[in-house]
Amino acid sequence: MVKVSPFAPKEPPRLPAIDGVRFATCAAGIRYPGRTDLLFVLFEPGTTAAGVFTRSKTASAPVEWCRARLQHGMARVLVVNSGNANAFTGKRGREAVKLTAEAAAQAAGCHEADVYLASTGVIGEPLDPAKFTGLLGGLAETADPEGIGDAARAIMTTDTYPKLATRQTEIEGVPVTINGIAKGAGMIAPDMATMLAFLFTDAAIEPGPLREILTPAADATFNAITIDGDTSTSDTLLLFATGTAASRGAPRIGLAHDPRLVKFRGALTEVLLDLAHQVVKDGEGATKFVTVKVTGAETPEAARRIAFSIANSPLVKTAIAGEDPNWGRVVMAVGKAGEAADRDRLSISFGDILVAKEGEVAPSYREELGANYMKRPEVAITVDVGVGEASVMVWTCDLTAEYIAINADYRS
Amino acid sequence: MVKVSPFAPKEPPRLPAIDGVRFATCAAGIRYPGRTDLLFVLFEPGTTAAGVFTRSKTASAPVEWCRARLQHGMARVLVVNSGNANAFTGKRGREAVKLTAEAAAQAAGCHEADVYLASTGVIGEPLDPAKFTGLLGGLAETADPEGIGDAARAIMTTDTYPKLATRQTEIEGVPVTINGIAKGAGMIAPDMATMLAFLFTDAAIEPGPLREILTPAADATFNAITIDGDTSTSDTLLLFATGTAASRGAPRIGLAHDPRLVKFRGALTEVLLDLAHQVVKDGEGATKFVTVKVTGAETPEAARRIAFSIANSPLVKTAIAGEDPNWGRVVMAVGKAGEAADRDRLSISFGDILVAKEGEVAPSYREELGANYMKRPEVAITVDVGVGEASVMVWTCDLTAEYIAINADYRS
Repeated sequence: MVKVSPFAPKEPPRLPAIDGVRFATCAAGIRYPGRTDLLFVLFEPGTTAAGVFTRSKTASAPVEWCRARLQHGMARVLVVNSGNANAFTGKRGREAVKLTAEAAAQAAGCHEADVYLASTGVIGEPLDPAKFTGLLGGLAETADPEGIGDAARAIMTTDTYPKLATRQTEIEGVPVTINGIAKGAGMIAPDMATMLAFLFTDAAIEPGPLREILTPAADATFNAITIDGDTSTSDTLLLFATGTAASRGAPRIGLAHDPRLVKFRGALTEVLLDLAHQVVKDGEGATKFVTVKVTGAETPEAARRIAFSIANSPLVKTAIAGEDPNWGRVVMAVGKAGEAADRDRLSISFGDILVAKEGEVAPSYREELGANYMKRPEVAITVDVGVGEASVMVWTCDLTAEYIAINADYRS
Repeated sequence: MVKVSPFAPKEPPRLPAIDGVRFATCAAGIRYPGRTDLLFVLFEPGTTAAGVFTRSKTASAPVEWCRARLQHGMARVLVVNSGNANAFTGKRGREAVKLTAEAAAQAAGCHEADVYLASTGVIGEPLDPAKFTGLLGGLAETADPEGIGDAARAIMTTDTYPKLATRQTEIEGVPVTINGIAKGAGMIAPDMATMLAFLFTDAAIEPGPLREILTPAADATFNAITIDGDTSTSDTLLLFATGTAASRGAPRIGLAHDPRLVKFRGALTEVLLDLAHQVVKDGEGATKFVTVKVTGAETPEAARRIAFSIANSPLVKTAIAGEDPNWGRVVMAVGKAGEAADRDRLSISFGDILVAKEGEVAPSYREELGANYMKRPEVAITVDVGVGEASVMVWTCDLTAEYIAINADYRS
């Protein structure tokens, strides 16, 4: 069936437990019998939450639910199911969300408003919450602080390896931990390339600043990756902060720009970037990990559009799959982005190899240099568009026949 | 090597000659020996011209040349070469264009300003005009009014069949003809999916109105197709009007909104649409011809962006390749377009089969209806986004493993 990504780690990393976060998983038979498809996460009272979601205009019912909950930003439970995305399910979808939240609140002994939900899987089919609402009480009882490895596996669909990342950092000298899990864009049966990521920390940060630090960190990481340019109805990134480090003397942070958060923000970005790169490396059919850097653009938005024009170009991505140093396609992708670029000042490098400068092939460039470079599993394309000071980095993978095989398979 | 498109006609259509247009072709050895790679078209004095070009910010030297010539809009010669796009070639590219135009003007006995140029092929390599400038005089002498079939073949690169279309119409009762040829997006060796189209008519229309009628006709046809969302540096559409029908009593038209042009405008759009559909049907690896219709959008631009979001979505296109009626991916593509759409009023049809309405799967829909429909070679997806009155149609093909194979091949 699906080949394991060549970037899969030999063993998943072991993450330290975080005080105040407990995990439980089970096979609820939501779509396939015997497949772990339900994750239940319990948080200590006082846990704060922040989130970033798909910008899709056809967002799923659970995405709408979480957006509404984050206005107060407190959390006690997270319930994630795979097998059914509960998207494009109309009124029944909203009812399923409500019933799940009620059952989860009862299981955890909390308010519905403290329940967060995410669903991934087939869209357009009603999700029957009766399949799993009766299981939540039992999951609450068995939830385990050491369960994050199982949690990472429970949210996998056709991901070829579980995605985990962790960083230790400190806030005013008190050690705090950030753990994260993610599932990526590799789904045959469930039909949608949904990205889900959940992060957990014992830092004590109020909901407002938690949101303010999460958004720019997500923009530089999860919002800077692309597999195929398609955006799911269900993409969800949630960060939960239990505040349990306060018992060890960590201050409770009320302002995003508090200088005591500088290291924490760096570590948070690292965890997000680690997970985002893992998602790209497990992209459907991926054999190459590609960094696209654009410099010299007029504005950050222009840099971003040019970078994504390159990273999403089927002609660029198939060339990389073929290990072809086809810089003409990079020129094409810059041109079609529609952003200011000075054709006659454009320069392109593959890794450290200068390929083109001042709008022409570089005198020092020889095809075999590029061809040799392209054999690497990780390649970098840098383009200077010669009109300004703005720059950006985004990440993608190549486009292979395996991607087509996966996605042209009839839904089973 | 490359399979012939399943949509290729058994025989190319035979087009009537148009007074005042003569064609000559030859193998100049620009990139490959023995391959016809040069087209020379001679026009009667008084021929007017209009054009539509790539919006790429890295447009090729010949595109820049033609844009400048169209300010006066008179034409005597068109020279087209394949094998080298003369794009991203800096100052040398502009010099090559100048030398070619000088030689063509000399061969035709006209001004350089009346020479139009197009190049398709590998980009970033200097084009040496000395390879063919010496041949233009001989081509001018042998140019033949019956040569349009050869012309259509001369501009092919990896197109799997020549693309020709013709319509007869009339202007104030006088019969006039519109002939067209095109090359599409199917190029292995030359590296770029360049679209070239050239139209010829004996109608007598001033440059201003010629431009004014060409632009909207191109928007509804060539600008409404996509193979892979990538845009070449060289896309060129030129329309030449010899005015020779005036000798048979046709009026010389000076205003685009002249009511005597109504039928002509319709016929022009038909020729363009015919050629544009042929280009899609010969898309790299295409096995399905797909019509995407969006209705109920807020504005025509919004309708267009939603339609292209569907038509360019790798997940939608691979589903079609797999004959999978995967309407969930259509919902996803609507959502990611970022335009206003009412999720709970969205409806989707495959052909005449209502798949989803009011934001949910339609009660009448059964999977086998959709699956059966998807087996057709030509499929139509209609989406009503439920927020306004604007609608649009665009056309695309499916995304197959053959596309990957063609584009991941190393340049030869």
